[in-house]
Amino acid sequence: MSSSRPRQAAHANETREFIITTAERLFAEEGVTAVSNRQVSESAGQANNFAVGYHFGTKADLVLAIVRRHTPAIEQRRVEMLAAIAGSSDLRDWLGCLVRPLTDHLASLGSPSWYARFIAQATTEPAYRQIVIAETVISTSLQEIIEGVSRLMPVLPDDVRTERSDMSRQLIVHTCAERERALQEGTATPRATWEAAAVGLIDALVGLWRAPFTPTGETKHGRERPRK
Amino acid sequence: MSSSRPRQAAHANETREFIITTAERLFAEEGVTAVSNRQVSESAGQANNFAVGYHFGTKADLVLAIVRRHTPAIEQRRVEMLAAIAGSSDLRDWLGCLVRPLTDHLASLGSPSWYARFIAQATTEPAYRQIVIAETVISTSLQEIIEGVSRLMPVLPDDVRTERSDMSRQLIVHTCAERERALQEGTATPRATWEAAAVGLIDALVGLWRAPFTPTGETKHGRERPRK
Repeated sequence: MSSSRPRQAAHANETREFIITTAERLFAEEGVTAVSNRQVSESAGQANNFAVGYHFGTKADLVLAIVRRHTPAIEQRRVEMLAAIAGSSDLRDWLGCLVRPLTDHLASLGSPSWYARFIAQATTEPAYRQIVIAETVISTSLQEIIEGVSRLMPVLPDDVRTERSDMSRQLIVHTCAERERALQEGTATPRATWEAAAVGLIDALVGLWRAPFTPTGETKHGRERPRK
Repeated sequence: MSSSRPRQAAHANETREFIITTAERLFAEEGVTAVSNRQVSESAGQANNFAVGYHFGTKADLVLAIVRRHTPAIEQRRVEMLAAIAGSSDLRDWLGCLVRPLTDHLASLGSPSWYARFIAQATTEPAYRQIVIAETVISTSLQEIIEGVSRLMPVLPDDVRTERSDMSRQLIVHTCAERERALQEGTATPRATWEAAAVGLIDALVGLWRAPFTPTGETKHGRERPRK
């Protein structure tokens, strides 16, 4: 009996990995709330409908396991890129550290990949949003980038910086998700490669961050261009 | 019998409207694919589980009915705004026509509204994406805006214009969806009002469209800053 334990452990590990792969695809296609643990177990070919519960606990634990399959590679790349641009006063360098760790990772997965769409889905669902954000957005290196970008844009009020950080995240996540979907479906994309898509995103984000801001106090008091 | 027909018709119309309202909320929260017609019928308090089928036909018809509840008001506002800026050479005017018809409409709905999240969900689901895009994006006034913006940015290659149009849509839809969700949940938003959120979006889009672009041909041939 005891000699079969390593084999059992290896088998359990394989099952676990296959459940993660299956769940990532289903969640990316249909949303995290929409897909039940039972559906994940069935799609992963598990005779036991409670396989997700057995191997992971709750669905939140499964979501966390999917995120943690990807974050180490992304985080490592971000730390390397940050080290390479230390002290830079070029906004483009900092925004490159925001975009490329994800686009490089997606490129490394090949097509079809599901991670961009999984992140797009999970971050729009109230029940799973915080789990994903806690694992991805609240990384030290990511905070370092946000601070680096903010330092280069001292003129922006705090609210506008928060707004543009949110917009940057939305633009990166949803542009990558749409590109990932188009690659799988074989429909047109404006850029031929993930590398070119990264360049396009960085260009756009440089403009977004450098854009002059309109104080909305002025708007409220009617100093903005009158609207029809 | 014949005197009850108008009442029956009025009742059928009320039921139809209530199904649309219910479906919009469910689709916004969970996604269009994830929610069955049966769930919509049940949540709308219909004893008959086939109420969606009876009143709408397919789910695609229901999705179309939701979109069509909102598009006339949005389209009318866009046409009015376009008439007011006719011939303008200020990029900000054109981008205002892109953002404000939606943000004004969302403001008019009060909170909780579901339309921004419904659009965010429906445009990320392959099966429903084309239906929604055909009803919203392919409006004459919207095409006029895209052309107006393109005319003001003659230096951009076609691919980059397509890319920035896509990015503009993503930024508007997902920023509005996130704001709508935050308003409902009572969590923090960077801007106090939809009007202020519109100003923030327009500022960011002006920057995004005016941003210099990096020819990716150069990137491929190594003329871009070397990456670590």
